[in-house]
Amino acid sequence: IFNPFITNSFTEEIEVLVFLPQNDSFLFSHARVAPAIRYAQDRLKAEYPGFHFNIHFENSDLANHALFTLADRSCNLKPDLILGPVREYEAAGVVRLASHWKIPVISAGALATAFKNKETEYSHLTRIAPSYVKMAETFKAMFEHFTWKSALLLIEDDMKERDCYFTLEGVYHLMDDYNVEVEIIHEQAPFNIEETFKNNQDMEVVIICAGADRIREIMLAAHKQQLTNGSYMFFNVDLFNASSYGNGSWKREDEFDDDARQAYASLNTVTLLRTVKPEYENFSMEMKRSIEGLGLYDCNDCGNVNMFVEGFHDALVLYSIALHEGMKNGYSKTNGTEITSHMWNRTFEGIAGQVSIDVNGDRVGDFSLMAMTNIEAGNYEVVVNYFGENKTFQLLPAFNSDHFTLTRRKEVPKKEKEVENHSC
Amino acid sequence: IFNPFITNSFTEEIEVLVFLPQNDSFLFSHARVAPAIRYAQDRLKAEYPGFHFNIHFENSDLANHALFTLADRSCNLKPDLILGPVREYEAAGVVRLASHWKIPVISAGALATAFKNKETEYSHLTRIAPSYVKMAETFKAMFEHFTWKSALLLIEDDMKERDCYFTLEGVYHLMDDYNVEVEIIHEQAPFNIEETFKNNQDMEVVIICAGADRIREIMLAAHKQQLTNGSYMFFNVDLFNASSYGNGSWKREDEFDDDARQAYASLNTVTLLRTVKPEYENFSMEMKRSIEGLGLYDCNDCGNVNMFVEGFHDALVLYSIALHEGMKNGYSKTNGTEITSHMWNRTFEGIAGQVSIDVNGDRVGDFSLMAMTNIEAGNYEVVVNYFGENKTFQLLPAFNSDHFTLTRRKEVPKKEKEVENHSC
Repeated sequence: IFNPFITNSFTEEIEVLVFLPQNDSFLFSHARVAPAIRYAQDRLKAEYPGFHFNIHFENSDLANHALFTLADRSCNLKPDLILGPVREYEAAGVVRLASHWKIPVISAGALATAFKNKETEYSHLTRIAPSYVKMAETFKAMFEHFTWKSALLLIEDDMKERDCYFTLEGVYHLMDDYNVEVEIIHEQAPFNIEETFKNNQDMEVVIICAGADRIREIMLAAHKQQLTNGSYMFFNVDLFNASSYGNGSWKREDEFDDDARQAYASLNTVTLLRTVKPEYENFSMEMKRSIEGLGLYDCNDCGNVNMFVEGFHDALVLYSIALHEGMKNGYSKTNGTEITSHMWNRTFEGIAGQVSIDVNGDRVGDFSLMAMTNIEAGNYEVVVNYFGENKTFQLLPAFNSDHFTLTRRKEVPKKEKEVENHSC
Repeated sequence: IFNPFITNSFTEEIEVLVFLPQNDSFLFSHARVAPAIRYAQDRLKAEYPGFHFNIHFENSDLANHALFTLADRSCNLKPDLILGPVREYEAAGVVRLASHWKIPVISAGALATAFKNKETEYSHLTRIAPSYVKMAETFKAMFEHFTWKSALLLIEDDMKERDCYFTLEGVYHLMDDYNVEVEIIHEQAPFNIEETFKNNQDMEVVIICAGADRIREIMLAAHKQQLTNGSYMFFNVDLFNASSYGNGSWKREDEFDDDARQAYASLNTVTLLRTVKPEYENFSMEMKRSIEGLGLYDCNDCGNVNMFVEGFHDALVLYSIALHEGMKNGYSKTNGTEITSHMWNRTFEGIAGQVSIDVNGDRVGDFSLMAMTNIEAGNYEVVVNYFGENKTFQLLPAFNSDHFTLTRRKEVPKKEKEVENHSC
């Protein structure tokens, strides 16, 4: 079995079921992600010529559709591997049933905190993109580094996909040693920003996850109240640098642009750390070409190759490595538990750089902190990188420590009455 | 096909999958409900000798177990009928998949508001017990009758089964024309009763769903603050008259019994209307005998034959009527959509009295309002009945209109400061 000359010649037909939405308003729509999976499939032919992937794309637009498809298809032939779904509510049902049937699931989504429970419900899930809890580590590391003690989380909740809710839920859970308050902002409902700041004067850090317009509204209000001069540290989370995930851009070509630019000088953005290696260029160009070929109109940020696209590419690579290793050890593709365990606690070369999956089957995350470094021009630069593997902090040349120094508002004496108000 | 002499001789093997928990702390545990299903099966032999029910009991204690069982079993042979599950989270998954496969589901549970959506997700669900929204109609009728305008809902939420949350959610949704405020009480967390009453002085009616101890705590606090003398109308919801659903009994054999009895003189209880007909006695005795034969120790209220037990009995009766009618019309048991439609918009004789299923496949509910009619003895009587079919109100001889007359607290002037506090 261990003869190195024949190991790569394992032959296997591999049934892959992929759940992606047809709706192109999602960054992880079929049109965007499918070319990356095909790209991986082609590339893997060289290394694993005996692996034949039979890839079945199923749409997952309707609620529960993915779960029904899995249940229906599995009566005839259970898939060997499931890729997706990305969205939390959809992923929950599919991953539970797949785990019950011991079928490996790899998703570039399912980023919510609940999915880290691999003991029972989600035992066969591998997460190929860094989860929200991993992102939260970046905040925890910052709080330790800068010795901040308290945070106000402003969360816009659409009560449907709930991306922002899930995003900051990770921060809330990870930072339970800190004084963390939460304000939920309901989409399209009025939100009293002034009242919120007044009720949370003691908080040092404000962390926002919201749509781009709401963020701008909050920052303009904070600026108007002179709270952007070091009274608070402001952060937003914008992992995918895409408008649907709350792109933190100040510019709107409107009368508030100048104020917004000044306000955003105090707003720092946590995003995914992007690495680029020579091979990536080819991948990236291929992906752009595929998207352009489709002539999608209703498609924001189409030019970006995002983490979802990379993730699903890397998912097929990771599975191949694990299956190959499992077969070397005498297991077959039908042993989904064994193949899954070979994907965990492993580092491999992904399309954009090294990918590390931790012992719990979740990708280790690297993140960047961006800050406005040229206030005149309103330009952002990466000032800090955070590496999840060794939990280290890298201050880049553009980092300016004054920018991250809190100048508490000593001039505002707290009135007895206001303190009383806090308790109700 | 319409020959009346042969219609009852249809022969059919009917696969029934029943989901009930083994855990006897539930009023709808396998030990309590299975005898009722067997009883119905026996009784139906006379009327439908050709129907052979193959009843498979599956436990549903673990999260998602019922869904997995359905998915697993259905690969070989899809059931013709599913009975249960009762609990909301469990029912959701099973009913969705069953509806996708067009398998009729009848449950004496799934009482939450969401399940009334039969357009898509829950298309094949028939609810054989009155849902929480039906119960809410009783409150709406009372509010109209007594011209009350506002209600404070006090909801104890265990964040697991969430029975009380789902119970009063129905009231909240149905009464959106009224001024309704909600206070969530977290299990085992402290709850500032005085503060709550202070912040809700304008409310006329207080509707509580909580565990028996919490209700007593609230009523004692209200009594201490002299709010039980007509300042508010107090109600609790205790559909199953069982301790696990918040039995509103004041008696504990402790030092507070006397105060509690006086406090509960102002607490009125909404419960299911119970009817008894001669045949019921036999059923009831059989059920008690089955339970006693099992010698269950960990079993509260074992003596009661509750709505769940009756409901699952009647479920099999209803299905038989519908299947028989469907077959007369030329359909077979495999046409789950057609059989389901024959169960809806129909009135039939259940084990405890008439059962009406509305056009949406949900049981029409009759409810009783109980009030303390002898304060010396602390005894309750039914004072009002509400009949869902024609939405009428029946005042019984024990009804005393003074008891339901609000004497607003004119002696407490609202201070400016307190009004301010309301807004925060």
